[in-house]
Amino acid sequence: MKRADLVQEQRDNAAGHAPPVRSLMDIDFYKFTMGQFIHANHPNVEVVFQLILRDKTIPLGEIIDMNELEKSLDHVMSLRFSRTDLYYLRGMDVYGRNMFSEEYLAFLKEFRMPAYSLSKKGDEISLTFRGPWPRVTMWETIALATVSELYYRSLMRRMSEYELDQTYSAAKNKLYKKLKQLRENGHILVADFGQRRRHSFVWQEQAIGMAREILGERFTGSSNTWMAFRHDLIPIGTNAHELPMVKTALSRAIHTQYDLLAEWEHLYGLGLRIMLPDTFGSEQFFRNAPERLHAWRGFRQDSGDPISRGELYIRWLRKLGVDPKEKLIIFSDGLDVDKMTELESHFRDRIKVAFGWGTNFTNDFRDCAPLHTELFRPFSMVCKVVEADGRPCVKLSDNINKATGPKSEVARYLKIFGSDGRTEQSVSV
Amino acid sequence: MKRADLVQEQRDNAAGHAPPVRSLMDIDFYKFTMGQFIHANHPNVEVVFQLILRDKTIPLGEIIDMNELEKSLDHVMSLRFSRTDLYYLRGMDVYGRNMFSEEYLAFLKEFRMPAYSLSKKGDEISLTFRGPWPRVTMWETIALATVSELYYRSLMRRMSEYELDQTYSAAKNKLYKKLKQLRENGHILVADFGQRRRHSFVWQEQAIGMAREILGERFTGSSNTWMAFRHDLIPIGTNAHELPMVKTALSRAIHTQYDLLAEWEHLYGLGLRIMLPDTFGSEQFFRNAPERLHAWRGFRQDSGDPISRGELYIRWLRKLGVDPKEKLIIFSDGLDVDKMTELESHFRDRIKVAFGWGTNFTNDFRDCAPLHTELFRPFSMVCKVVEADGRPCVKLSDNINKATGPKSEVARYLKIFGSDGRTEQSVSV
Repeated sequence: MKRADLVQEQRDNAAGHAPPVRSLMDIDFYKFTMGQFIHANHPNVEVVFQLILRDKTIPLGEIIDMNELEKSLDHVMSLRFSRTDLYYLRGMDVYGRNMFSEEYLAFLKEFRMPAYSLSKKGDEISLTFRGPWPRVTMWETIALATVSELYYRSLMRRMSEYELDQTYSAAKNKLYKKLKQLRENGHILVADFGQRRRHSFVWQEQAIGMAREILGERFTGSSNTWMAFRHDLIPIGTNAHELPMVKTALSRAIHTQYDLLAEWEHLYGLGLRIMLPDTFGSEQFFRNAPERLHAWRGFRQDSGDPISRGELYIRWLRKLGVDPKEKLIIFSDGLDVDKMTELESHFRDRIKVAFGWGTNFTNDFRDCAPLHTELFRPFSMVCKVVEADGRPCVKLSDNINKATGPKSEVARYLKIFGSDGRTEQSVSV
Repeated sequence: MKRADLVQEQRDNAAGHAPPVRSLMDIDFYKFTMGQFIHANHPNVEVVFQLILRDKTIPLGEIIDMNELEKSLDHVMSLRFSRTDLYYLRGMDVYGRNMFSEEYLAFLKEFRMPAYSLSKKGDEISLTFRGPWPRVTMWETIALATVSELYYRSLMRRMSEYELDQTYSAAKNKLYKKLKQLRENGHILVADFGQRRRHSFVWQEQAIGMAREILGERFTGSSNTWMAFRHDLIPIGTNAHELPMVKTALSRAIHTQYDLLAEWEHLYGLGLRIMLPDTFGSEQFFRNAPERLHAWRGFRQDSGDPISRGELYIRWLRKLGVDPKEKLIIFSDGLDVDKMTELESHFRDRIKVAFGWGTNFTNDFRDCAPLHTELFRPFSMVCKVVEADGRPCVKLSDNINKATGPKSEVARYLKIFGSDGRTEQSVSV
C-alpha cells in the first residue's frame, strides 16, 4: 500500500467497505502454537471465551454499530485458511522444522470459526464464544481486533475531513518520534505485539513499515501471523494464560501449572520454551517450580512490577546456579518507550531483554483527534476464557486489577495459591 | 491492486519507477523443480544461456532502452529469497510433502543471480548468462519477462494518454471475450503459462484475476510461482528442454533423453512425471522409449502438429496396453482459444487434456494500440541454453522453425536422431 492512500483507505474502511479482519492469518501467532497443543491434548474440552471491557469509561456499546459488528464477525466465520497459508505454516523453520504436525495442519485445512453469541444489555455489549477449545481459542485476538477497529471507525464517521487528516498526521508524528527515540537508545530490541487492540489493520501495517525503516534489525518480528507472513518478519508467540487457566480449572491442582510445561516441552523446542509465570502469581510459581525449568529459554513478564518480577527470576536462576546472562525476559505488559528504556537500562548486561510492544505501538492516538479527544484513545479490553467444561476459569495475575473470574472463585484460588508479591497497578491498555 | 489504478500503475512503471521483475519468486515454477534436479545431479556443469529473438521483424535493440535494461537486470541481481518465500516452498505439498530438499532450500537461501553479459551489436541486443548450471538456469524466464516488459514500456512512452487508455481498454475487452468463450465451452481446463513473454507484471496479475473470476475452478493454476503464491493458485511446472539438451551435449548418447527421466523419477512423484518428448523429435522418442515410461502421468506437447503428436502418444500407450483415458496431455505450444477448443473437442473422452496458455493470455495486444499497431504485438523470443561445458547445445523440436543450435551441430544431431515426423509451422509467439 502506498502511504499516500492511507487516509483514503481509512476513510473507505470507515465507510464500511471492508471487515476489520479479512484473513484467518490475521491472528496472533501464539494461537497456532497453543492451538496445536490444545488440539493434541484437549480436543474435547468445552470452553467459553468472553469479551471483557476493563475500561468502564469507554461507552463501547453506545459507539459501536451492532449491525456492523455482526457483519464483521459473520465475515470471519466465512473465512478459510488458503493453500498458501498452510504452505507457510508447514514450511516455517524458525522454531525448528515441521513444528506443526500434519494432524494439526489437516485440522486447520478444514477449520471454520465456531459460532459467536452477541447481544446488548443496556449499553453493554455481550460477546461470547462457546464450543470445543481448539476452535473457540481462535477467536481471542480476532474478536478483539474486530471490536477495536469498529469502535474507532464509528468515531471517525463523526469526524470531518480535516479533523481526520489532523488525527492521522498527529498519530504518525507521535509514532515516528517514539521510534526515533528507540533508535537513539541503541540497545532496545522490540517486536510488534499490537494486533488485538490496534487502531486498524491498515494502521498496524503502517506502524510495522515505519518500525522496520527506523529500527532496522532491532525491530525483531510480529506476533501477528499475517504481518509476519506478508512482510517477511519473524512470527513471535508461544503460550498464554488460557493454558494454565483451563487446565487448572479442570484439575484444581497446583502442580498443573508445571505439568503443562512438561507437555509443552514434548511438543516444542527451546525457541518456544518461554514461561508465563504470573497466571496464579509469579512468587508462588518460582517458589515451587521444578528445577528442570531452569533450562527454559526465559520468561514473559505480563503483570505486576516488571523490575521486581525480573529480579525474582534472576534470583531463582542464581539459586539454581544458572547464569542469568544466558536467559531472556520478554516484557509485554502495557509498554511504551519510557518504560522500555527504563527496563532495558535496569537489566542491561545482567540478563537478555526483549520487548513485545502492543497497544501503544499500534494504537496510540491519545490527544491526536482535536475534537474527539476524550473517546479517541486506546483502552483496556481482553477476550478471556471464563469457563471450561462448566467450571469457572480464574486468573490471579501479579496485578490485582488484571485478575479475572467470579469473586468467590478468585477467593478460593487465592487460598490455594496465596497472594505473595501481588500488587495493584492501573491498567491503561 | 484496485483495477481502477491499472492504467496509472502502468504509466508509473513505464515512467521507470519499478523494475519489471521485483522478486525471485516471479519465475516459472519449473525452474525450481529443474533447479533442484540440476543442483543434485549436475552442480558443476558450466552453461551459457542466451536471449534469442526469433521474430526478426521486431526492432528490439532500437526500441529498448539499454540503460533501463541494465538497471532492471542489476535489480534482479540484488534480489534474495525471503524467509516467507522459503517457508512457502518448503511447506508446499501439492506434489507430495517435502518435495524440495533441505540441501536445495539452503542453496536458495544463499542464492544470488549470477552475472549477465549485455551488449548491442548494431540493432541487435546480445544478452548471455554464463556460469554454473544451477544458478544460470534461474535467469531464463526472468530475463525474458524483463526484456518483454521493457519493450512495451518503451513503446508506451511514445503513446499519448488517450492512446494508452484505448490500448488497455481494447486489450481488456479482448481478454474478457476470450475467457467468456472458454467458459461457454465448458470443458476446457486452462492454466496460466504466460510469465516469460507477458506484457507486464501488472497485466499478468490482471489477466489472472480476470481468469479466476470468469473460469472459476476451470482456471487450474499458474506457472508463475509468485502469482501462485500470492493468489493461492496451484503452481504448475515440471521439466523443459534444457535437461535433455545439456545432458545430451555432454553424453552425445541417444539414451540420455531417457536416462534423465529415470533420474527425475528418483526425485519426484507421479504429479511431476510429465514427459517432454520433442527435444530431438517425438517420433524417435516414442519409438525407442523404455516401456516403464507408460506409468508416467502424461506428456507435454510443445512443438509440431498437436493433433498428430497427441495421436502418436495414444498409439504408443495402446501398443503397451495402457488405457489413454487415464493419461494426460498438456498442450503448451502457442495456444489461443480456437486452437484449445479444437484440441479439446478432438481428444474429448479419449485422453485427459489440459492447456498451458501463455503469451496469448498475458500479452495479446494485437490491434489494440490505435497508432502503434505494428510494433505493439506479442513476438517470439526465447532464452535458451546454448553451451554446456564448452559443447554446443541443440534442440531439434517437432517444428523445424523451433530448432536451436549451430547449423553443423543440428545436422549432426539429425543424423543421430533422424527427422521423422518433424514439420514446419510458423512461430508467432
